[in-house]
Amino acid sequence: MNPSAERPATSTDVLPVTPGDIEAAARRITGHVRRTPLLRLPGAALGIHVAEIWLKLEQLQRGGSFKARGMFNRMLALPIPAVGVVVASGGNAGIAVATAAQALGVRCEVYLPENSTAAKRAALAALGAAVQVQGATYADALAACLQRQATSGALLMHAYDQAEVVAGAGTLAAEIEHVAGLPERVLVSVGGGGLIGGVAAWFAGRTRVEALEPVGSPTLHAAREAGRPVDVVVGGLAADALGARRIGTIAWPLCQRHVAAAHLVPDAAIVAAQRLLWRELRLAVEPAAALGLAALACGAVQPAAHERVALVLCGANFDPASLNTQGAA
Amino acid sequence: MNPSAERPATSTDVLPVTPGDIEAAARRITGHVRRTPLLRLPGAALGIHVAEIWLKLEQLQRGGSFKARGMFNRMLALPIPAVGVVVASGGNAGIAVATAAQALGVRCEVYLPENSTAAKRAALAALGAAVQVQGATYADALAACLQRQATSGALLMHAYDQAEVVAGAGTLAAEIEHVAGLPERVLVSVGGGGLIGGVAAWFAGRTRVEALEPVGSPTLHAAREAGRPVDVVVGGLAADALGARRIGTIAWPLCQRHVAAAHLVPDAAIVAAQRLLWRELRLAVEPAAALGLAALACGAVQPAAHERVALVLCGANFDPASLNTQGAA
Repeated sequence: MNPSAERPATSTDVLPVTPGDIEAAARRITGHVRRTPLLRLPGAALGIHVAEIWLKLEQLQRGGSFKARGMFNRMLALPIPAVGVVVASGGNAGIAVATAAQALGVRCEVYLPENSTAAKRAALAALGAAVQVQGATYADALAACLQRQATSGALLMHAYDQAEVVAGAGTLAAEIEHVAGLPERVLVSVGGGGLIGGVAAWFAGRTRVEALEPVGSPTLHAAREAGRPVDVVVGGLAADALGARRIGTIAWPLCQRHVAAAHLVPDAAIVAAQRLLWRELRLAVEPAAALGLAALACGAVQPAAHERVALVLCGANFDPASLNTQGAA
Repeated sequence: MNPSAERPATSTDVLPVTPGDIEAAARRITGHVRRTPLLRLPGAALGIHVAEIWLKLEQLQRGGSFKARGMFNRMLALPIPAVGVVVASGGNAGIAVATAAQALGVRCEVYLPENSTAAKRAALAALGAAVQVQGATYADALAACLQRQATSGALLMHAYDQAEVVAGAGTLAAEIEHVAGLPERVLVSVGGGGLIGGVAAWFAGRTRVEALEPVGSPTLHAAREAGRPVDVVVGGLAADALGARRIGTIAWPLCQRHVAAAHLVPDAAIVAAQRLLWRELRLAVEPAAALGLAALACGAVQPAAHERVALVLCGANFDPASLNTQGAA
């Protein structure tokens, strides 16, 4: 099938990330990040009526999410001044930047707002980052981060909207294909679009890539309706990892060209899928990583019975007590 | 190195499980159990001074532990009467028997004592097992199970002390070698010895296999001191999965011939290793599965720096809330 037949491509321009960029990223980050396992199961193992489900266990990545790939790639691709790197994030991106910086011996400042939790600050400090608490909201912390970058000349790291970050994320798609070939369908969770941008850039129409968003954080869905990236109000269960306010400028043209559909997934289905992954596979993942299975289980995505469907378990930076496994032996 | 040089073999008899038995088991259970991933990491990723740590992610197996391998193997190797199978176990073995029976369409009775938890009974019932609550202790439940077997003619399933069960467990060792070759050392947790019996039978002196036991459940350690299997008093953290009272008669000669050493691991080191596996790898495993890393981290086992050390993460039938991850982002 050819996803691009379903809606017109928006541009004939060269896309911002190419398969060649992803191959270069893969060479660069080899030995710095983990080649995470791909677990292949019959669909019946999870009660899904498809031939196979492939689970890319990216929650086992350094720093507990796929984001280490992009952050290592950017730090290895670009010259880093002695003052180091800066980022505004208390979530997976901040952890990934601090992890990569620590591993590469790079100075790292992470900007967080005053309402960030003590646990997040402690986790970042434990990774050697200099934690800067600035402003009431993440927007304020980002403003402080950008000001610091302008005066210090530090390398700015963005959670999703830089080409090296998107290319790094795409390396996990290349690994899936290298190990198992092309699945019929790939389901990817979307926040700011760093992951789906990279996955879409890699497969580039050779298989069907679909986007999944929590109903509370529909950045791609809203952009597709508006025909351009627009701000959304963010909330709901997976907002911690998928709560970007707007789809990234790198991801947007990649999604327009190579993402066949964007589906919304209810919070209740996400929680149910998290528990299903624990109960049947003993995989503990954060809400954002459960959207693919949730979409299959609740019928938001309905593949044909013969399909092999790849899901990316993108992270597990959460408290596993929230799995609330009363019945688990 | 040749582990058998370190202490005399106790017998020149044919061992009760051979590599050929394990190859036959592997053919039999293919398609019924999962080929679990092998995650290979630099030792530094877990703060251990060895070249590589290989983690066999057997907690992702059907039923949440390695025991599904042995139970499927026994049910597929032997004729099963219409009355089905019986087992006395509320732990991983009971879950594995119920899982295999349900998958193969076999009737299954599980005997539990009156002090078993409602959660265990519910989990077994959800797998289609007929749960029989009999007697005050597991010994009483086992007696009731044996009596039922004698009158009904059902196929008796033992948690660890049957040749098909041990051979089934050995298939995970064959998978490790198939994927990655021979490591310099393999560390295996011991309760009744079903797992280490199979692993020792497979490697058969071609690499160094070492046994790990919680200080509270030292069945192999006590047997090696006495020169024969003896009863031990069972307690401590990992007793739920490793709390057999005596090393099995199948495992004992295999361990005497092919296990180089038996180490005791303190409960505090086991808990620390569980938390380390979650913090660094987002792997949630039961205490019994953390003994290998615990032994490396606390110095009970001290490999040379060049070694590649394989650990079997043997199960995750536990409540992940017990990981108590206050600081996890």
